[in-house]
Amino acid sequence: MLTITGASLIGGHEICGGTGFKAFDPMKCVILEPTFHNATKEEVDTACQLAASAAVAYRQLPRERRAVFLETIADLLEQETDIIVTRAMQETALPQGRLTGEMGRTTGQLRMFARIARAGDVWACKTDEALPDRKPMARPELKQCKVPVGPVAVFCASNFPLAFSVAGGDTASALAAGCPVVCRAHPAHPGTAELVARCICKAVEKCSMPKGVFSLVGGEAYDVGTWLVEHPAIQSVAFTGSCQGGTALAAIGARRATPIPVFAEMGSINPVFLMQDALKNRGADLGAAFVASLTAGTGQFCTNPGLVIALEGAGTEAFIAAAVSALSAQDEGVMLTRGMADSYRKKVGELGAKEGVELLAQSKGAGETTRAKGMFFRASYSTFMKNTCLHQEVFGPCSLLVTCSSFEEMLSLARHLEGQLTVTFQMDAEDMSSAQALLPIIEDKAGRILVNGWPTGVEVCSAMVHGGPFPATTDGRFTSVGGDAIDRFLRPVCYQNFPVELLPADLRP
Amino acid sequence: MLTITGASLIGGHEICGGTGFKAFDPMKCVILEPTFHNATKEEVDTACQLAASAAVAYRQLPRERRAVFLETIADLLEQETDIIVTRAMQETALPQGRLTGEMGRTTGQLRMFARIARAGDVWACKTDEALPDRKPMARPELKQCKVPVGPVAVFCASNFPLAFSVAGGDTASALAAGCPVVCRAHPAHPGTAELVARCICKAVEKCSMPKGVFSLVGGEAYDVGTWLVEHPAIQSVAFTGSCQGGTALAAIGARRATPIPVFAEMGSINPVFLMQDALKNRGADLGAAFVASLTAGTGQFCTNPGLVIALEGAGTEAFIAAAVSALSAQDEGVMLTRGMADSYRKKVGELGAKEGVELLAQSKGAGETTRAKGMFFRASYSTFMKNTCLHQEVFGPCSLLVTCSSFEEMLSLARHLEGQLTVTFQMDAEDMSSAQALLPIIEDKAGRILVNGWPTGVEVCSAMVHGGPFPATTDGRFTSVGGDAIDRFLRPVCYQNFPVELLPADLRP
Repeated sequence: MLTITGASLIGGHEICGGTGFKAFDPMKCVILEPTFHNATKEEVDTACQLAASAAVAYRQLPRERRAVFLETIADLLEQETDIIVTRAMQETALPQGRLTGEMGRTTGQLRMFARIARAGDVWACKTDEALPDRKPMARPELKQCKVPVGPVAVFCASNFPLAFSVAGGDTASALAAGCPVVCRAHPAHPGTAELVARCICKAVEKCSMPKGVFSLVGGEAYDVGTWLVEHPAIQSVAFTGSCQGGTALAAIGARRATPIPVFAEMGSINPVFLMQDALKNRGADLGAAFVASLTAGTGQFCTNPGLVIALEGAGTEAFIAAAVSALSAQDEGVMLTRGMADSYRKKVGELGAKEGVELLAQSKGAGETTRAKGMFFRASYSTFMKNTCLHQEVFGPCSLLVTCSSFEEMLSLARHLEGQLTVTFQMDAEDMSSAQALLPIIEDKAGRILVNGWPTGVEVCSAMVHGGPFPATTDGRFTSVGGDAIDRFLRPVCYQNFPVELLPADLRP
Repeated sequence: MLTITGASLIGGHEICGGTGFKAFDPMKCVILEPTFHNATKEEVDTACQLAASAAVAYRQLPRERRAVFLETIADLLEQETDIIVTRAMQETALPQGRLTGEMGRTTGQLRMFARIARAGDVWACKTDEALPDRKPMARPELKQCKVPVGPVAVFCASNFPLAFSVAGGDTASALAAGCPVVCRAHPAHPGTAELVARCICKAVEKCSMPKGVFSLVGGEAYDVGTWLVEHPAIQSVAFTGSCQGGTALAAIGARRATPIPVFAEMGSINPVFLMQDALKNRGADLGAAFVASLTAGTGQFCTNPGLVIALEGAGTEAFIAAAVSALSAQDEGVMLTRGMADSYRKKVGELGAKEGVELLAQSKGAGETTRAKGMFFRASYSTFMKNTCLHQEVFGPCSLLVTCSSFEEMLSLARHLEGQLTVTFQMDAEDMSSAQALLPIIEDKAGRILVNGWPTGVEVCSAMVHGGPFPATTDGRFTSVGGDAIDRFLRPVCYQNFPVELLPADLRP
């Protein structure tokens, strides 16, 4: 039976060096036991040095060993699902069904990266054969494969306490690539983080992995994250969170003596274009489905539909009427932390106070303490274009409908969007030419483009791109969900004229 | 017959707006006609805006059209080889044979990227099929392919006036990817740049490419480069040159409102480890071969062997004797510019003045004005470890031999190396275990690792990695030579539940 002690887990050892803090139950608004510890600078240093010293031994293990390690983590997590989900419910106010599903997603990701490690395709081994008789110069044999970049710092996300946290996609893809992981627990769910980390530590022992391949450092203080990214042993960083947090870490990564990439998945308003024919045929249905996507998980998905664009007209009025009716009938939700609920209220207040922004509907309740009400606003094209603050994310169940008076305005709005994780077209047969005109603009703005779906819900599969141009992420060439997430942690090396005995295992004939 | 007018070539138009400057013949030390023009900020803006307006039309062309465009550039360059090589000889002092070979490499690269564009594999199209009956939720169809990132700024290198310049690997890979190019001519060979650019402009017309797909902007002033990287239309930057220049451009790219990647290939000292058995068997041969690699092209290759590491002993003394004899018999060489020769003299002087650094040999001549003498120094392990300035590149035909008194010192030295383009092992059968001990350290430091070759000479092939950890480049996950260079300019997009008519051509069944 796993228990929570509040320690950092550094190379398998429990360390409780720093000042204490406690977790908080946002549903009941009560403090949770036990006391957790802010990792000290020395503890972070120890974790990073252990990771560095484990790096070569870990990457030289056969890929099969790494695959079994990932599968063992998945098995151990499954055995502890009840205790983990129970604690996560307390710390996040997310419902049991959602967290059980997220556990399935987490173990599914671990097993997917085990399959990827086993298959080995992403190591991209290739050979240019020697041409000893080539004129004017012989060509030596050249082989290439990928090598892991080294220790990775993983920052847990607040909004996915399992699938984007301690044993989430970042950790799974880094471990599959052959990189040790030093994970920074999210202070909003430190108990969940510790329970999951204990499963990983058990798997390290069970699979005889090098000590130091995994450590968990906790803390409320920003310092812990700064020390991690600044540490010379860390070679790459994966982060999911706010634009402010992501750009701050990216700046720290860039100003190191040896700069490192920081893969930060940050803000996105996930625009949804409601096309004319779709609105005409099913405006009311779209309004109801939109509210379901908007308020799912109290609006705390990275892919929440925060902006809806439509032409003025009867179809749009039907959409509005249905959305207003659906949202007004809903109860307020509970956010992950009091701080996030406070920030939501502040930003919603600013948005509603803008000249030209009209409140269409809100959900029921007082929206106090950790509670947040769904909010649905409307503005004209010209109001949207005048106020770039309307282009930015409000994290939570808030969305803005922008109505355009012509398709040209819609195209112009598209051109002025920032980078996005997703853009969605709701379209029917007659909308094809409009969608074809919008698509080339949108392809420059988004990592994933959807037709007739809603952006919340991110499949873990080989074609997924959970990324997108800045400010959606710091590097739109990579994804943090799906098989390609491993590419962030691999680097090509060319081996020229190597004797077979010196070649890495993957390149031997 | 091509003529040089000194203009910038912006979307096919000749523009001579800015102040004038002239090229210089480093061999004869005379000024060359005609007058060239520093591009103005307005001209750079025009070139970038034209590139942006061409971007969608260019990327939507069938890949076959882009392939033919690249092949047409290669054909036109071949037709103009004589005039281009003649001018390049004047501007760079590089010999005819070298420049003719470099032209072959340049047209070879263009045709390789034509093949890559035609084959289409790098667009990495993939599909996760719809699972309409999946429980608890249906999966929509998800497809992925790569899209070009948009206009690319290419900075020409001083030391490869053809293969790393206007129609070099950066331009070829960007155009193949589907990205318009705005090229900054190198002020040391502006006439060569203009002649090559005129061939590209002819190919643009002949192949009916969108205007704006290629522009050349010239200038001595740093401003031209700054304006380019700062321009909002530019989405990526490729640069080959100094560490100072590359990190400055990377900083500009990072501080934009929308940051962009700057792929800078910068400095490297390309360490060569001389192993015991190899030295015993062929120390003298290695000494002579080393000097040939060191002084090739007056030491102006990015992969020049600037650091040699060996254990003290008889084999090393034989190596030294042969190298001293070979270098002392050589004449000084001509560098690409007076400024580079001045900088070389300054850095060589500083190196020689360090306590513990001994001059072993130098080539003949006075080493004045544009001339540079080959220089070969020696220092002990402890001197090397105390002076990090000895770890940095001296651009030109200068190398330092560091002798270690134990293999442990050699391992320690390896651990303290900065990131490198290449590392070389000279090894024979008995050296296998030493090489196996060094390799894991070196794999973290280098983009390419060679056995029993010399690092100068970079094959253009599919397995090549001309890259490496910082400070060799700004991003060790990419290469600037070989087929993978195209990966710098592509970004994945996921298309979810798309009707066939809306899918990009590459993803249609």
